[in-house]
Amino acid sequence: MAGKIFFSVSMSLDGFSAPESMDGLLATPEQREQDPRLGYWMAQWMELQAWIFPQRHFRENLSLGQGGEEGRDNDIVRDTFERTGASIMGKRMFTLGERAWPKAAPFHTPVFVLTHEQRDPWERAGGTTFHFVNDGIHSALGQAREAAGDRDVRIAGGSETILEYLNAGLVDEFSIALSPVLFGAGTRLFDGVDASRIALAPIRSESTSRATHLTYAVHRRAPS
Amino acid sequence: MAGKIFFSVSMSLDGFSAPESMDGLLATPEQREQDPRLGYWMAQWMELQAWIFPQRHFRENLSLGQGGEEGRDNDIVRDTFERTGASIMGKRMFTLGERAWPKAAPFHTPVFVLTHEQRDPWERAGGTTFHFVNDGIHSALGQAREAAGDRDVRIAGGSETILEYLNAGLVDEFSIALSPVLFGAGTRLFDGVDASRIALAPIRSESTSRATHLTYAVHRRAPS
Repeated sequence: MAGKIFFSVSMSLDGFSAPESMDGLLATPEQREQDPRLGYWMAQWMELQAWIFPQRHFRENLSLGQGGEEGRDNDIVRDTFERTGASIMGKRMFTLGERAWPKAAPFHTPVFVLTHEQRDPWERAGGTTFHFVNDGIHSALGQAREAAGDRDVRIAGGSETILEYLNAGLVDEFSIALSPVLFGAGTRLFDGVDASRIALAPIRSESTSRATHLTYAVHRRAPS
Repeated sequence: MAGKIFFSVSMSLDGFSAPESMDGLLATPEQREQDPRLGYWMAQWMELQAWIFPQRHFRENLSLGQGGEEGRDNDIVRDTFERTGASIMGKRMFTLGERAWPKAAPFHTPVFVLTHEQRDPWERAGGTTFHFVNDGIHSALGQAREAAGDRDVRIAGGSETILEYLNAGLVDEFSIALSPVLFGAGTRLFDGVDASRIALAPIRSESTSRATHLTYAVHRRAPS
């Protein structure tokens, strides 16, 4: 049986999945001093992701150190990892990750990168191979399905890539870690969603002290 | 002891608390035929509020009929009603409600309406009296606190009024009924929020089959 197509992201209570710019994430102290917004954006990002950083599975997978929390948040991180047989991501997310991930990139599966750049597959330690797909989202999904086998395909991000798949009717379900934070500005996860064609059905909802974890199935609405 | 200042609204997963226009709500079938958007907006509104319409307390209070559900959603509706000793609302919400509410308006307490219009208090059946406040949000809050006694003051809406109080640092906590629906467009609850000054602390989170009920305490951030 083929796996599901899903995404799983953190979102602020007001609907943002990223700050106005991700440049703060890799900025030097000097750069942050020159442009105080860099530090503000990084702080926003850290608050959005605050639930996941202490989790043992996340820490080990990102080479952030040993140990960590092992409660429900950690179970959710691990379950999301284990169900994923292949990931798809946009070029921007890849470019940022290329600089930020450890050498053993945190996927340990094939990853399909949507890009106009022609580039040979890039094999990393630990079983992650990046494949660069030049012929669109359907092609990437076909290759990812094939690679994932019985496991699920994760649309990893960013939000533009997620929305392309969602609006094309290609997402079966998604999970949101709703963080107790307001952004006010930034990148909205559902910006440009074709709401007239998409209906949601709650599958699961669970709160920890750190976040509210929401999972919905996606259904197509009949055109009105 | 003085009560708390709170708001409690339904919100779509993508952060909207109202459709692009509320004109659909009171439109005639002829008007909806002339402008199909009216029907679409009304359908959006009904989906957003779908969790509350079947609830016994809501039905009885809005004179929508006897009976109804009596589970946790109903408890939450009733608790919100019972804690409220006075409400504050914007002129637009009042104007819409004036046409939509039953003669026994659903508040049964003093209600303070922010408006430039000078108008005598308007007493309705069942204990609701509307007071029209011309001198700003602080004055309205002072009067509402006085009227509420030990009970809480609810900032009823719409979202512009809620945001004025939130950004002024006058809201102690709020509850959101997060509905399993995407709007894509409309009125965003937190549009214009001063995120750099507001921190949230989760108080409660509870899911029913109809909605996820989230309650947060509001804290001021120190200026950075």
